[in-house]
Amino acid sequence: MYGQKDVLVKEIANKKIIKENSEIIHTPDIIKDDESPLSATKSGKESSMWKAISAQKVNRADISLSAGNTGALLLMSRLILNTIDGIDKPALAGLWPNNKGMNVVLDLGANVECSAKNLLDFSSMGSALHRSLYEHEVPKVALLNIGLEEHKGNDVLKKTFSILKKSKINNFEFSGFIEGNQIMNGDVNVIITDGFTGNIALKTAEGTANFITKNIKKSLNIFSLLLSYYSLKKFKDKLDPRKFNGAIFLGLEGPVVKSHGSTDAIGFSYSIDMCNKIIKSNLIKKIKTNLII
Amino acid sequence: MYGQKDVLVKEIANKKIIKENSEIIHTPDIIKDDESPLSATKSGKESSMWKAISAQKVNRADISLSAGNTGALLLMSRLILNTIDGIDKPALAGLWPNNKGMNVVLDLGANVECSAKNLLDFSSMGSALHRSLYEHEVPKVALLNIGLEEHKGNDVLKKTFSILKKSKINNFEFSGFIEGNQIMNGDVNVIITDGFTGNIALKTAEGTANFITKNIKKSLNIFSLLLSYYSLKKFKDKLDPRKFNGAIFLGLEGPVVKSHGSTDAIGFSYSIDMCNKIIKSNLIKKIKTNLII
Repeated sequence: MYGQKDVLVKEIANKKIIKENSEIIHTPDIIKDDESPLSATKSGKESSMWKAISAQKVNRADISLSAGNTGALLLMSRLILNTIDGIDKPALAGLWPNNKGMNVVLDLGANVECSAKNLLDFSSMGSALHRSLYEHEVPKVALLNIGLEEHKGNDVLKKTFSILKKSKINNFEFSGFIEGNQIMNGDVNVIITDGFTGNIALKTAEGTANFITKNIKKSLNIFSLLLSYYSLKKFKDKLDPRKFNGAIFLGLEGPVVKSHGSTDAIGFSYSIDMCNKIIKSNLIKKIKTNLII
Repeated sequence: MYGQKDVLVKEIANKKIIKENSEIIHTPDIIKDDESPLSATKSGKESSMWKAISAQKVNRADISLSAGNTGALLLMSRLILNTIDGIDKPALAGLWPNNKGMNVVLDLGANVECSAKNLLDFSSMGSALHRSLYEHEVPKVALLNIGLEEHKGNDVLKKTFSILKKSKINNFEFSGFIEGNQIMNGDVNVIITDGFTGNIALKTAEGTANFITKNIKKSLNIFSLLLSYYSLKKFKDKLDPRKFNGAIFLGLEGPVVKSHGSTDAIGFSYSIDMCNKIIKSNLIKKIKTNLII
């Protein structure tokens, strides 16, 4: 654990298992949430982020997990860990529930603009991640678009579609285009898009879910709520954002996971579990052996 | 009413008021839903769309309303009605409920790629539309982006932001950037984006709303549903898509409205009401006098 030693020591004082299984390395620099990635990187060489990721470089760590400034984490990861040979741009992948299980969606905001080559990389990396987390399912890749026909969308999407259609792919099935209203229907489970569109879609979905939930809750009187308490709780549990806390930075020689800054211990434990699966399944090797050339 | 005469005559046989206040003009060509806009335009000069929009050109009609093929309707509108002087690209605007009332959102899919000039045009056209439909509210324009700070997003958004920030605007307030999760919070009411992003956001919101509603409904037992019947119904009514049925094609010398193809008589009546407000408020003149040069 890299961080403020006095804070961490106090936090784990009563946590016997954590205490016995961890070492605390003090890092004096603190990176603020609103700091620009560049300034954080320049002046934060003694920060927890920089030190943790550097530990991967010298094989003292397999993976880094941080709840800090996303931009700084991405930039530091790129600077310290090399990009995998053949990959132009790393991407931020996240989990998004669907009717049948869980989607892997990328890019969620690391790259505002993407080429067809980038989207192809995202397809194979996202499929490798899906296999790592849900090993018994076949990754089904779809490109997020504004129509289902081959001629719809921008040039990058059309080009990516035509390459994927004729490529021999062995680690996923290609399902073509999907539209925004199909993200959650469960017919596909790896959804590919540029970082701008992915970020807008994810946040629009969050906002809509909050709007609907809040309004329906307001509409239910106390007796209704009590009568359906358990089934409503079950649904709420299923969509509990802590259960899919953790965005994965894909495309580097080592894995880095970003936890939501405002999650709690339970949310953070799910991220640790995700880290564990990523390492156990050897995600980086999976990515390297499945790139579409 | 332009369309298949025999069908229409039968439909309004018992509708006295409609019969007395309308004239039926038979149009033999039928445009199919899956027909390409180009082929529809080439071979559909005797279709209801072509004829209705042409009637605007010779002052026999003030506005056209159609529930047919969107692409064909957009292309025909552009071909028949001139683009307003100073506007490069017309856009498709729609209504999207928020916590306090209704947003006007554009572009919803007419233009996959947009320049800063396009987004500026959309801002003033969207504000004019908002004033036409909700005359007692001040239009508050926001640009949909992946962050709130001035340096976030792509070059087009940054340029649009900087122009709007220093422009003297008199028909709306400029509220800066918003992210996807703020679309429905009601702080702004005119949301500007390119047609690709707007279409993805709208459909993602639709899909999410359906997902949440369906799952919560499944979680409520029959007694809960009955106990909260009226307040749930009130919420459902508020979000009834028929109430904001109708996308408006903005930027041409005449207004054209597209109804959802699968709506019913009630949904269509809301679109007619929208057409009425657009004409009464003189939307086209409002747009012309408020362009940001």
